[in-house]
Amino acid sequence: MQDSGKKKIDRLVGEILESYREFPQTCSIDMKYRLNNEIIIDLLEKIRCVVFPGYFEAKNLNQDTIEYHVGELLEDIQYRLTKQVAKALYHKAELPASEQEARAKAEEIVSAFMERLPALRSILATDVQAAYDGDPAAFNTDEVIFSYPGVFAITVNRIAHELHILGVPMIPRIMTEHAHSLTGIDIHPGATIGSYFFIDHGTGVVIGETTEIGTGAKIYQGVTLGALSTRGGQNLRGSKRHPTLEDNVTVYSGASILGGGTVIGEGAVIGSNAFITSSVPGGTRVSIKNPELQFKGRVRMTELGQEGFWKG
Amino acid sequence: MQDSGKKKIDRLVGEILESYREFPQTCSIDMKYRLNNEIIIDLLEKIRCVVFPGYFEAKNLNQDTIEYHVGELLEDIQYRLTKQVAKALYHKAELPASEQEARAKAEEIVSAFMERLPALRSILATDVQAAYDGDPAAFNTDEVIFSYPGVFAITVNRIAHELHILGVPMIPRIMTEHAHSLTGIDIHPGATIGSYFFIDHGTGVVIGETTEIGTGAKIYQGVTLGALSTRGGQNLRGSKRHPTLEDNVTVYSGASILGGGTVIGEGAVIGSNAFITSSVPGGTRVSIKNPELQFKGRVRMTELGQEGFWKG
Amino acid sequence: MQDSGKKKIDRLVGEILESYREFPQTCSIDMKYRLNNEIIIDLLEKIRCVVFPGYFEAKNLNQDTIEYHVGELLEDIQYRLTKQVAKALYHKAELPASEQEARAKAEEIVSAFMERLPALRSILATDVQAAYDGDPAAFNTDEVIFSYPGVFAITVNRIAHELHILGVPMIPRIMTEHAHSLTGIDIHPGATIGSYFFIDHGTGVVIGETTEIGTGAKIYQGVTLGALSTRGGQNLRGSKRHPTLEDNVTVYSGASILGGGTVIGEGAVIGSNAFITSSVPGGTRVSIKNPELQFKGRVRMTELGQEGFWKG
Repeated sequence: MQDSGKKKIDRLVGEILESYREFPQTCSIDMKYRLNNEIIIDLLEKIRCVVFPGYFEAKNLNQDTIEYHVGELLEDIQYRLTKQVAKALYHKAELPASEQEARAKAEEIVSAFMERLPALRSILATDVQAAYDGDPAAFNTDEVIFSYPGVFAITVNRIAHELHILGVPMIPRIMTEHAHSLTGIDIHPGATIGSYFFIDHGTGVVIGETTEIGTGAKIYQGVTLGALSTRGGQNLRGSKRHPTLEDNVTVYSGASILGGGTVIGEGAVIGSNAFITSSVPGGTRVSIKNPELQFKGRVRMTELGQEGFWKG
Repeated sequence: MQDSGKKKIDRLVGEILESYREFPQTCSIDMKYRLNNEIIIDLLEKIRCVVFPGYFEAKNLNQDTIEYHVGELLEDIQYRLTKQVAKALYHKAELPASEQEARAKAEEIVSAFMERLPALRSILATDVQAAYDGDPAAFNTDEVIFSYPGVFAITVNRIAHELHILGVPMIPRIMTEHAHSLTGIDIHPGATIGSYFFIDHGTGVVIGETTEIGTGAKIYQGVTLGALSTRGGQNLRGSKRHPTLEDNVTVYSGASILGGGTVIGEGAVIGSNAFITSSVPGGTRVSIKNPELQFKGRVRMTELGQEGFWKG
Repeated sequence: MQDSGKKKIDRLVGEILESYREFPQTCSIDMKYRLNNEIIIDLLEKIRCVVFPGYFEAKNLNQDTIEYHVGELLEDIQYRLTKQVAKALYHKAELPASEQEARAKAEEIVSAFMERLPALRSILATDVQAAYDGDPAAFNTDEVIFSYPGVFAITVNRIAHELHILGVPMIPRIMTEHAHSLTGIDIHPGATIGSYFFIDHGTGVVIGETTEIGTGAKIYQGVTLGALSTRGGQNLRGSKRHPTLEDNVTVYSGASILGGGTVIGEGAVIGSNAFITSSVPGGTRVSIKNPELQFKGRVRMTELGQEGFWKG
């Protein structure tokens, strides 16, 4: 009854190929428009080298060669990103009529994206400053660029968001999920985020696709800006499901703000672990009345924390 | 008093070697059965290439060569996984009598594991569908396979779980901790999980060793399916410490369900941040009465969220 | 109006260089003291190979060559770490008068750091034991070293903390943010942590810069040991903002302990999701009265969990 090693593998290969035919939606064979995750992540890193020059390259940069260096980076980004974008466009329901058309559309998109790089640098400078200003443990802005996960996440998000609004499918999400993997911060590329934005610590943060955030927001670990329910599944695609934060809103750790109609007014402060499903007027501080604490053992406590405003 | 550079290093080497003798349980020297993390992760990726062909390889796949490609992958997996499993078996308390015996047992296990690959593909196809159906932001199933952390985590868990139930020590946990590191989703390889399973966002999810989950579960970020107490430490090994979820249970973000006797009945929905330590009947929706909110500043709120059912 | 491809890139390079001049604080060009993240992470891994020999090397170690192997590692660490530390010292506000001075100071620091390696091994042995003792799912101490994220995080933290107290800027934070990225556990290198320390699961844990923890602490996923407010921003630098935990304190998942004056007494147990902003006496068990649960559907529950003491 036992088949020999080689025969066994051959039989198993047959069964697996049969499974490829049975479940074609989990195969990507004979796909000319197959994306390459590794190239997309490499391009993301190259774009980061353009916007934060000298921090992540293998070699030192100097003024004499910087022009040549940036030129080389841009040519590489333009060439390879155009190829990936053209492939991604094929994934759209309304397929381009021809490879040439997809290619032409991709060139147009990548060109528009690259024009945005100086503006990206300007807004990222405000994010770096916000991280330094907001964290007493920050040593200098170089440290912030080198090692702060919140700065990495917003950098990737701003890059991915530009591609997202230019109509590129899939690639922006691959980029933001890369940042999610490295930082625990899950920002959908569709989210619109104003300048001087700071996420501290960041693990567990979720910011949904249709979230809108004004300038000067400060967000802590474990915060969700989410939807109230997704029972509608794919029928909800495109609808405004996530909240709006006006300028200078602070959201402390573990708070949830939910729903497409929920607006947090200018300067509002949302306390730790608050669960918000309706709008909050500007200038308001909202905190939860913390659940009563129970003590066992030698001593009862006289007083325990009531205020949810804090930072770790 | 100062010794020279070379002498200093020599003295320090001596002190460190002395420390190796003093704390042998944190050394792995002269270990024939030493596992190799990198090889195990590489094997995991190869297995993923078999179950999701064409997504993660460096090259495009095509129908003409797919049979040869899969055959090569399987031979490589069989050869190297058998070696690692044989080494892992030596870690068991009851050591195999000889290297040949360990090798023979490993061959048997890896053979049984590989027979499960077509079934793994079938169940993973339901997981991919569940992710697409459940998330309005999903573009298509390719995007889900490429970039959804919940799909990566359940893929790794299903692979690791097969090895776990075949009695392989250590390797399954190395695999799931790799997924934990990349996704923030911590599923013990012992957990038993039904088909059409979807974890959305996922950062902070913990699913313990003796958890049992039916078909059609939907789990959000920050959910813990855990034990009530582990004061017993190693004495609790093997006992049912984690909950059971019947079919079609939904658990919203931040909820905790705890205890080996806790059963969540079919179709139950557990709201955000709920803390559950007793069984919940089927068809029930459980939510916390959210802690009262306090407002300071210009305006009081008239109404704020009471329902914990939502999704980000 | 359209400029050609080459001309477009040239114009864009010009705009980007202009942006480098406009925002010099987000550029690192012509910086002799530029740190190299990759080298720092590689050094961290080499130091881990010294403290846990034989687990993470590509090759097997044996007693005959271990002395030579450790000697080689130490020489490499000394040489390259000294270079990175010298560069980091230049980032300090009070610049060293000369490169020689920075170099001399770096040699002194690295020498002192290396003297601490045997002591690091001793304390890490207690951490490995704590992880094994504390988790019923742990198979043996090798598994704990190979795959437990909490053990990785405390290993990196103890290494980074030694460099931090020796006055090295930036490098310790790069190390701990690397661990944060891989584990979701965010421990500032300034935190002081006693022996026999165990973080289980760990995703979402935040331990702030001025936290002090005694021996025997056990911490679960999602715990924050944080500051009450950081509105003061950079003005708060250096002040004691984070709590103190005396010996043998347990903090269950999702709990927050906040404030520089908050002291958790010896042997206290803090329940899941508790929010603590004042001191807790030794020997006390504190849990939250869980928010009332609401049920909809077929059946009401008679009893649901009141106790916050558990583990996942």
